[in-house]
Amino acid sequence: MNGVEKTASERSKAYGSDFLQLDVGDAPAGGMADWLAWRLREAIADGRLAVGGRLPPTRVLAAELRVSRGVVTEAYRRLTEDGHVEGRRRGGTVVVAAPVDAGPGPRAAGPEQPAVFFPAAPGPEAFEILRAAPASIDLTPGLPDLAAFPRAAWLRAERAVLAELSAADLGYGDPHGAPALRRAVSGWLARNRGIRADPDDIVVVAGTAQALTLLHPVLRADGMGAVAVEDPGSLGTRQHLENGGLDILPVPVDADGIRVDALRAGGARAVLLTPAHQFPTGAVLSGERRRELLRWAEDGGGLVLEDDYDAEHRYDRPPVPALRAMLAERVCYMGSVSKLLAPALRVGWVVPPPGYRDALVNAKRFTDLGNAVLPQLVLARLMESGELERHLRLLRGRHRRRRDAMIAAIAEHLPGAVVHGAAAGLHLTVTFDGAGGSGSYGGRGTGGRRGLDGGRGPGGEAAADAGSAGSAGVTGVTGMADAGLAGVTDTELAAAALSCGVKVQPLSWHRLRPGPPGLVLGYAASHPDAVTEGVRLLGRALRGK
Amino acid sequence: MNGVEKTASERSKAYGSDFLQLDVGDAPAGGMADWLAWRLREAIADGRLAVGGRLPPTRVLAAELRVSRGVVTEAYRRLTEDGHVEGRRRGGTVVVAAPVDAGPGPRAAGPEQPAVFFPAAPGPEAFEILRAAPASIDLTPGLPDLAAFPRAAWLRAERAVLAELSAADLGYGDPHGAPALRRAVSGWLARNRGIRADPDDIVVVAGTAQALTLLHPVLRADGMGAVAVEDPGSLGTRQHLENGGLDILPVPVDADGIRVDALRAGGARAVLLTPAHQFPTGAVLSGERRRELLRWAEDGGGLVLEDDYDAEHRYDRPPVPALRAMLAERVCYMGSVSKLLAPALRVGWVVPPPGYRDALVNAKRFTDLGNAVLPQLVLARLMESGELERHLRLLRGRHRRRRDAMIAAIAEHLPGAVVHGAAAGLHLTVTFDGAGGSGSYGGRGTGGRRGLDGGRGPGGEAAADAGSAGSAGVTGVTGMADAGLAGVTDTELAAAALSCGVKVQPLSWHRLRPGPPGLVLGYAASHPDAVTEGVRLLGRALRGK
Repeated sequence: MNGVEKTASERSKAYGSDFLQLDVGDAPAGGMADWLAWRLREAIADGRLAVGGRLPPTRVLAAELRVSRGVVTEAYRRLTEDGHVEGRRRGGTVVVAAPVDAGPGPRAAGPEQPAVFFPAAPGPEAFEILRAAPASIDLTPGLPDLAAFPRAAWLRAERAVLAELSAADLGYGDPHGAPALRRAVSGWLARNRGIRADPDDIVVVAGTAQALTLLHPVLRADGMGAVAVEDPGSLGTRQHLENGGLDILPVPVDADGIRVDALRAGGARAVLLTPAHQFPTGAVLSGERRRELLRWAEDGGGLVLEDDYDAEHRYDRPPVPALRAMLAERVCYMGSVSKLLAPALRVGWVVPPPGYRDALVNAKRFTDLGNAVLPQLVLARLMESGELERHLRLLRGRHRRRRDAMIAAIAEHLPGAVVHGAAAGLHLTVTFDGAGGSGSYGGRGTGGRRGLDGGRGPGGEAAADAGSAGSAGVTGVTGMADAGLAGVTDTELAAAALSCGVKVQPLSWHRLRPGPPGLVLGYAASHPDAVTEGVRLLGRALRGK
Repeated sequence: MNGVEKTASERSKAYGSDFLQLDVGDAPAGGMADWLAWRLREAIADGRLAVGGRLPPTRVLAAELRVSRGVVTEAYRRLTEDGHVEGRRRGGTVVVAAPVDAGPGPRAAGPEQPAVFFPAAPGPEAFEILRAAPASIDLTPGLPDLAAFPRAAWLRAERAVLAELSAADLGYGDPHGAPALRRAVSGWLARNRGIRADPDDIVVVAGTAQALTLLHPVLRADGMGAVAVEDPGSLGTRQHLENGGLDILPVPVDADGIRVDALRAGGARAVLLTPAHQFPTGAVLSGERRRELLRWAEDGGGLVLEDDYDAEHRYDRPPVPALRAMLAERVCYMGSVSKLLAPALRVGWVVPPPGYRDALVNAKRFTDLGNAVLPQLVLARLMESGELERHLRLLRGRHRRRRDAMIAAIAEHLPGAVVHGAAAGLHLTVTFDGAGGSGSYGGRGTGGRRGLDGGRGPGGEAAADAGSAGSAGVTGVTGMADAGLAGVTDTELAAAALSCGVKVQPLSWHRLRPGPPGLVLGYAASHPDAVTEGVRLLGRALRGK
């Protein structure tokens, strides 16, 4: 809290960098600017850098931290975009607003404002509004470690592509996708997902969102006006289907994945699901359920829309082959680079059932005449050269450490929270099931696993057993009910968290039918220190409820 | 014709490069491989390189031409993709098929095969099928000089973007478009199209095709189930509207552009048009018609969909401001980089009427969550740095020389053809109006101009007066009727041209109601030598009908 009482002029002289207590050794490789911005936000939030104070000149801070001046400039730019600081020519860069969180404990300033980010019935722009919300630490799910994006490899590949490209390649492309990328994806799917697909069977699209949009008219033309979805299941996916004029039939999910008996009883002819790592619960569709599901598809001409959104990321379990690998005729497979490289690339692929291919290509033609060509060729090169698999291995190591940090922090700061689905993916889900010691399940096939409706039956496993390989296991159990959470909705919890500077998603956003409150927590995109600190702040916010 | 009688073994020894009569000085800067591929195709077509013969080793040809080996390798790759040659390990690269054209005069081999590329009622995949047709020279419209694509500038900008990008920039982007690109487009439109639009008014899309797809539901929701279109007008655009479930109301076009009286009489509330350079006739919407059109829009709540596809390219006339600049409330403006840089980029922009903006952004969100971010930031940089305007100036010079070459060649080889709309754009249209000396019009506001239905009235101007700045004017008139064209459809003409190795589009593809036969000829994407040779071959093909 030093400096708060000084005049602006004193402050502007006083500020060097030592008060920031920065240790560059903590910064992730390749993510220096993000890390620095985060540390500065923290310093602003806790008052070390007060509103009205001046940041050290970029030259000075760069020299003290022994980083390039570009890193500091970029970190300042991030803070400027956040609205925390402002450039004032000769006046330097001045702190103009503290993050929503600050100081010890949640602010007195009411939770009304954060609450607007978490409506009980979120609209189509809910994710963008939440993205724009200011926070010190972002634990929303859905992103890999973006600081690890292989910028140098991407640029090298782009240079090679530009050198080899013919002029004709710059014309109108193939709406089906660049042949080079379709060949590369064919190899990728064979190596990583057990799928044998000819390059001609693959359609390149602008991510899974677009895949769904292209499929809407194809499904309707095939008499499928209703699609069964997992409950809980992805809000974004559901919004897409509804926007496409399709009816939604919720089917419950338990620890073995979607309940195929309920699917069968519901009467839908198409189902959209996330079998490798169910979103948001993290359940893996069990072998028995897979067989049931494929029988359902074969018997009744059912169609499985397989959203394989993060299947390449797994930590404590063997890979689960794609459903497409088992029943090509009835499975429409969808994947993308959003979780492998970056959502900003907007590249994905569909392997439709053979009968849908031409209709899908036609829909793609009319939607945008095909994906942009250069990024397709760059990506093909990264796939063919093994660069993308190297990147995936790098991500796995980083994500695992972040996941472990989150589980450890949950054990410490959220005792009584039940952790679900932490054996794979980029996020985990915690539920607050009422009295302490309620059911939980992880990614391993341990007996007696329970779904997100836990808390109804007797007994159950230790809370926060993430199904991870032991080291991350958590033993202490203190019911969150003790912390006064009874009767509190998870949108209120998420708003309280945002008041403390931590952004998370309420589980209820992804539910169609009511269930215990919970939070969906992404760990992959944040440095382990930020993960730990985020969970600590989350615990504080929840205790304040 | 040397070498044709030799055995394959003799040929494989005999072939050096001198028989190719290549002068590298003829090659366009940056388009060496294309130029070489084209020359080799020519040599194959006229028998200098016979089927079964071997191309010179890349090393040898590169040394003889004093070009890099990569250029030769790339040219061979192009020929391999065309199917003209085939790599045979130690056997070298062997000619396996001649282009459809060859030798003196069209081949005896019937036109049945080329005819399949030109159905009278083309389907949605017509353009792709035609693109895949083998030809020595491609004079189809719609492409700028792709060999001039600023590869080095693009790569430099990409490097800078990758260096400055924050990790957050790699996440899910703004479906509205990257703010940096919207700012850059705002400036571009102000400088080049007279449009004042705030960055917030601009929506980034994947080209005009996508703009239309996004607009379909928006139009329907606003009670516009039918859209008036120009006749003749773009086939591709019309297919898009029809695919979107909209009804099409054709409105005739004359030398002053769309007939607003007919639009008014037709009763449609929305009209899609190309006012700056009508496709395919090249007519500029006259001042009087503009005023009429804007009155129509204001009086009856009409909506103008302004497809500004190639307005930046003009040669002999002052710029025509966009309609959007005159009536923002009732004009939905659409532009893209397809004709400025390359269609393969799939980037465009819409400036919708204020009331449509949110619906359009919502449609974009559901279609693909927004354009890919990296190319948007690269493009923004090229726009802000003035690099794109420099490129446009370069293109204008190149395109003008190609346009002049085409007009001169038409005067020599297609006497009696009437040239339309050559004062701007990337293509021109020729019609064969029956008896020689029929009406014509160009881009200038000369009196007595006539539309594409010419040939009905008396007198008229000299044929092939392209409205260009004098030098390219054509005087000799010999009615194509003399060449026996009466009763021949333009799809047959296009098929005959393809038999001679030249790819063009039949005008009737772009007509909704019958009219004189014609061809749409793109000049911008081909070297002047190829343009001249293409028109020469076209003349030969037509005389063969």
